[in-house]
Amino acid sequence: MEKPKQLHMSSQRLEGLGDGIFAVAMTILVLELHLPLVNGNTFADFIHSFKQDLWHGLLCYIISFVVLGIMWFGHRMMFEYIGRTNRHFIFLGVLFYMVVCLVPFSTRFLAANTLKWFAISVYALNLSLCNLTLYAQWMYGLRKKNLLHLEVPDEVQKEAKLSFLLSPVVYSIAIAFSFFIPQVSIAIFVITPVIYLLPNRLDKYLP
Amino acid sequence: MEKPKQLHMSSQRLEGLGDGIFAVAMTILVLELHLPLVNGNTFADFIHSFKQDLWHGLLCYIISFVVLGIMWFGHRMMFEYIGRTNRHFIFLGVLFYMVVCLVPFSTRFLAANTLKWFAISVYALNLSLCNLTLYAQWMYGLRKKNLLHLEVPDEVQKEAKLSFLLSPVVYSIAIAFSFFIPQVSIAIFVITPVIYLLPNRLDKYLP
Amino acid sequence: MEKPKQLHMSSQRLEGLGDGIFAVAMTILVLELHLPLVNGNTFADFIHSFKQDLWHGLLCYIISFVVLGIMWFGHRMMFEYIGRTNRHFIFLGVLFYMVVCLVPFSTRFLAANTLKWFAISVYALNLSLCNLTLYAQWMYGLRKKNLLHLEVPDEVQKEAKLSFLLSPVVYSIAIAFSFFIPQVSIAIFVITPVIYLLPNRLDKYLP
Amino acid sequence: MEKPKQLHMSSQRLEGLGDGIFAVAMTILVLELHLPLVNGNTFADFIHSFKQDLWHGLLCYIISFVVLGIMWFGHRMMFEYIGRTNRHFIFLGVLFYMVVCLVPFSTRFLAANTLKWFAISVYALNLSLCNLTLYAQWMYGLRKKNLLHLEVPDEVQKEAKLSFLLSPVVYSIAIAFSFFIPQVSIAIFVITPVIYLLPNRLDKYLP
Repeated sequence: MEKPKQLHMSSQRLEGLGDGIFAVAMTILVLELHLPLVNGNTFADFIHSFKQDLWHGLLCYIISFVVLGIMWFGHRMMFEYIGRTNRHFIFLGVLFYMVVCLVPFSTRFLAANTLKWFAISVYALNLSLCNLTLYAQWMYGLRKKNLLHLEVPDEVQKEAKLSFLLSPVVYSIAIAFSFFIPQVSIAIFVITPVIYLLPNRLDKYLP
Repeated sequence: MEKPKQLHMSSQRLEGLGDGIFAVAMTILVLELHLPLVNGNTFADFIHSFKQDLWHGLLCYIISFVVLGIMWFGHRMMFEYIGRTNRHFIFLGVLFYMVVCLVPFSTRFLAANTLKWFAISVYALNLSLCNLTLYAQWMYGLRKKNLLHLEVPDEVQKEAKLSFLLSPVVYSIAIAFSFFIPQVSIAIFVITPVIYLLPNRLDKYLP
Repeated sequence: MEKPKQLHMSSQRLEGLGDGIFAVAMTILVLELHLPLVNGNTFADFIHSFKQDLWHGLLCYIISFVVLGIMWFGHRMMFEYIGRTNRHFIFLGVLFYMVVCLVPFSTRFLAANTLKWFAISVYALNLSLCNLTLYAQWMYGLRKKNLLHLEVPDEVQKEAKLSFLLSPVVYSIAIAFSFFIPQVSIAIFVITPVIYLLPNRLDKYLP
Repeated sequence: MEKPKQLHMSSQRLEGLGDGIFAVAMTILVLELHLPLVNGNTFADFIHSFKQDLWHGLLCYIISFVVLGIMWFGHRMMFEYIGRTNRHFIFLGVLFYMVVCLVPFSTRFLAANTLKWFAISVYALNLSLCNLTLYAQWMYGLRKKNLLHLEVPDEVQKEAKLSFLLSPVVYSIAIAFSFFIPQVSIAIFVITPVIYLLPNRLDKYLP
């Protein structure tokens, strides 16, 4: 029996859906910010209400926004190599988007319970699941050769693996600290994105 | 009288609108999740509030997200064959998007009344209408030959019909059960997406 | 003095922004729907709460969604002829999007005050402004010949003018009726979109 | 050692993400508008509640929408010259989007405290940060020659610099006035967008 004509199934629309989902997830983070209620008109009044109502929320907003930006970058890099999709690849993509869309929720939870172990754990788990589902999608794409439109150099494969798996490891440490010194966990949330912003071995492949 | 020069009316922008609508509908599902109010700091306290405030909402979130992902896949597949649009096709598309955008509402309704027949019925009706309006759009496209940019093999037509009509049938059964054993209806909501994830006869057309 | 090299300024990104804005405006309509609070478990209980909490909101949702769909269609048609942009054209586009984004607000206002003259007037004014700003953008594009990538036939110009100006006229009548028989105004809101769905002289330009 | 094959890293997807973020940020401005509660049915009743509940919010909505529209235009112009991206450029982009997404928040804050120095300062600071982060991205792109796909004329560079830095200066003046005559600050917020809409030296590069 003759093999039926294959559809092209370009990855462009999945990328478009992903860009839309990241855009909305990043933007609705702001809906979680509480308006500070300023009683009085002095500088001290403003700082007081800022600290009480907004400070935790704003810190979590900035961390989550930058983390989502870094994930978007990883997702975007992946599609430099992967140019076509199939049902399983799209399903893995939907799983990734499903945990990405939970980030505004766990950010809100963390902002409301900043130093509590359960909020730190939920947040760390959520970010780890984002990385792991994206990694699963990447591994599937690497093995299905006809989804690729560019060969993936070994060095890129190694560096990508490191990038994908670094954060689940680091975030597990954050969970461990949350039971004893939760301040350390928050510090880890602040520092981890910075690591991803340092120069790395993938930069030489970029313009 | 000479026929006027036809516009091309590529389907790309309708696809873009659809991707945007799916992205927003999927993302605002998370706005419906209630923040669990944890009283105390023990594991038992967290599990208790998780069960009380979040469990139903999270289950409905996951079901709806995966179902919307599968519908997006169907919608995306359709445009491998359909490459142009006209006024009627776009109107059918708007109807489809209108019921897709109701999914966050019926999800919220189901999360608030998980085992009630009316919430189950509204949810099942909503998902069925999504499938039926997408099917109407597909049937219209199939018959308007100049909207197609690729011939649709008979096998694809049959399999697509089955996929489109399976879920309204299954969801009708869920409605029937909701009056007697609503747990079965919820089980149907969980299992139905899994059926769509199993290998099927369309896979051989994909990369 | 030599004329500087002109930028191409393709309209694609403005279309992308517009598709995004329509997608979000259509989707957040659903956030305005109140969850019906059903007391009891009988069919009568459900119908009662549906009528009380949801009926007005759902009717307004459907009207607004279809109206926004028709406006999107007009906006999409425009870009079959217009392929480039400049600062003034983009500014007129931003004005159009500004009133489009108000539709979820005036829809919510109408749902909360369905038969009140002020809610009907705000809604009718909002929809009229959408049509008028889109018309201004279209007229600007028609006169700036180097924004066009396809000549606009006279028949299309006439029919488009009619389409753009029909609804402000009809909605003015709705406002007039709102002071005496507001039910007529609501009927006008229901019927007007149907007029746009009837076959018209532009259809022969479409596939 | 041989230089590894460079990826193309077209800027299209970053533009898509940005269009999505602007679309959502502009649209959710409307979620901040309070529904006026009209007691009674006379024209005076409506005007009274409009003034009390909606007037400040609507003014801030219009200012913010137009300002975001102008920023979108600047962002869009930038990508007429810049056609590729790298990690640092995308990171600067994420910073820009992060402050853009805060605009709905500071708009809401200004609407709730229209003549208070702290709300005016937060709003002015937010808009200034939008301009400064976009300027940083532009400066980075200008210096990384291989991100450009079109040479940037000196005149464009000068005019762009002026456009980017005008608003931080003007908004600093608004902050200064907020402590003495806050009405002047609001007037500055209204007038500044108008300056950007006047003809300028970049117009001759546009169609």
